[in-house]
Amino acid sequence: MISEITAQQLDTEQFITEKISKIKDAVGDGTAINALSGGIDSSTVTMLGHNALGDRLKTVFIQNGLMRQGEPERVVDIFRELGVKVEIIDASKEFLAALAGIEDPEEKREAITQTFYRDVFGRIVKNCGAKYLMQGTILTDIDETVAGIKRQHNVFEQLGIDPQRAFGYQIIEPLIELRKDGVRKVGKALGLPDEVFGRIPFPGPALAARVIGEVTPQRIGTVRKATVIVERALRNTGAFQYMAILHADRVTGMRDGKRDFGEQIEIRCWDSLDARVATPTRLPFETLEKLAHEIIHDVSGIVSVTYNIATKPPSTIEAV
Amino acid sequence: MISEITAQQLDTEQFITEKISKIKDAVGDGTAINALSGGIDSSTVTMLGHNALGDRLKTVFIQNGLMRQGEPERVVDIFRELGVKVEIIDASKEFLAALAGIEDPEEKREAITQTFYRDVFGRIVKNCGAKYLMQGTILTDIDETVAGIKRQHNVFEQLGIDPQRAFGYQIIEPLIELRKDGVRKVGKALGLPDEVFGRIPFPGPALAARVIGEVTPQRIGTVRKATVIVERALRNTGAFQYMAILHADRVTGMRDGKRDFGEQIEIRCWDSLDARVATPTRLPFETLEKLAHEIIHDVSGIVSVTYNIATKPPSTIEAV
Repeated sequence: MISEITAQQLDTEQFITEKISKIKDAVGDGTAINALSGGIDSSTVTMLGHNALGDRLKTVFIQNGLMRQGEPERVVDIFRELGVKVEIIDASKEFLAALAGIEDPEEKREAITQTFYRDVFGRIVKNCGAKYLMQGTILTDIDETVAGIKRQHNVFEQLGIDPQRAFGYQIIEPLIELRKDGVRKVGKALGLPDEVFGRIPFPGPALAARVIGEVTPQRIGTVRKATVIVERALRNTGAFQYMAILHADRVTGMRDGKRDFGEQIEIRCWDSLDARVATPTRLPFETLEKLAHEIIHDVSGIVSVTYNIATKPPSTIEAV
Repeated sequence: MISEITAQQLDTEQFITEKISKIKDAVGDGTAINALSGGIDSSTVTMLGHNALGDRLKTVFIQNGLMRQGEPERVVDIFRELGVKVEIIDASKEFLAALAGIEDPEEKREAITQTFYRDVFGRIVKNCGAKYLMQGTILTDIDETVAGIKRQHNVFEQLGIDPQRAFGYQIIEPLIELRKDGVRKVGKALGLPDEVFGRIPFPGPALAARVIGEVTPQRIGTVRKATVIVERALRNTGAFQYMAILHADRVTGMRDGKRDFGEQIEIRCWDSLDARVATPTRLPFETLEKLAHEIIHDVSGIVSVTYNIATKPPSTIEAV
């Protein structure tokens, strides 16, 4: 049983000192590894681990080919400023190969998870010789799953490591007593810049979750371009989250005076406090029309753009 | 070569008297048949033919199962008021069988055309014994096709009638010198009510053009319900055209607290003078949200609603 530390109870300095000390004790003169996504949880764990272990923490950023434009470079730059070296592992081809031919959203998620843990990160962990794995698991992550040893077993199973046979592997989860608001306090105290905290939520499967139907390098390229346009245009709206979604349905358009079937981008922009319920942001029509015009002119193959007007529920924030 | 009569040149009374006389001369004591769709052209031809031939014109309304809610009854009621008997031929099953399994929009159109002419109307024409076929062809229809005998051949070919072998079939096209504005004048002079003229444009393939992907009775039922809601809500906006489109893409929704894949309706509402260029109507967000809410609650299976924000071109008025 894990006892929660609420953001109110949290003594940030004491928490950080204690966790650094515990990480030092656990790892001794060994080495640890962690995967950084650029999110708040994994960024905070990276800073704790770096403060405890210095160069004996190997931090990798796995480029899965599904990121937003400039994303790996952005994360590496932030940590370079903080004196933390992050290694980018380009596994784009493996992820895209695993996704080829899959249309079902759940199967896409599963393929990404499997490729991440079992294939890419599993291989890195085994090859680098580190026996300590740091993870940014928070209390919310395990609220509805079975906590403790069983869950840790799962992580190693996911990595293709049998802890019985490969004795000595250990998982370190320094944020497990906290929720998101607590992690934000710790992350800020560790020097993470505002940029890390100010970003809108972004799904785990990245742009693969923004493509209805099959994920191909071309389709990811299309939705990546549309995402740049939408995020730039809606950045200052104060909306909770906004996104571009590439549909699989073909719709009729006109190219050089001829009928032609093209693709459609759906824009969603949400007002919400905590993502549990959400309503479409009432954007001015000038903004919507400008957005549609820009996407149609700059993103090859797109002839139609729509704006979501349904609420959550029964819709969800993401489309798939 | 057909010589145009412009709406300005048109002497409506003289035109009507002359056409009625010509129809009488052509048909003699024979019988004629025509198919009424409820549009302005076929409605005007029905009135001309009725005035010339009375009961010797057989007017049929072919129910293809793809109509908007209440459409056949509405058309029959209008003509009953005018003293014209219209026979509804229910061929829904034939049309839906012909559409089964077809996803490509052009193939859907072709299946509907073939079923209409070759199967359903061809059979009716052959069985009823009428050798005269009245059609509401207008000058605009043939502007870009080959006029005259060759085109009339095509009509009989479409009907599965070989005019060489089945001697005596004749086509009567009393509106062929007119364009739309001329036909409206003639139709009004013949007593057609405002209701016939005030309606928004509606595509030939009817609701089959409002379904992306396969046309099934269930999917037509879904888009028919959404169409009722959209047409009622947007009737007084003054917009050029408005519609509901059922997508084939599945998107995530929540039903009873669980994730569930549902369907999406796209709403389009256009400002336009002549359909050549068009922009999305800047509907108030209150209207859009109310529409989305109504569709989601009243139309089974729908979890998401979008509003088109692209212009024509490069979009088109209809989606497929």
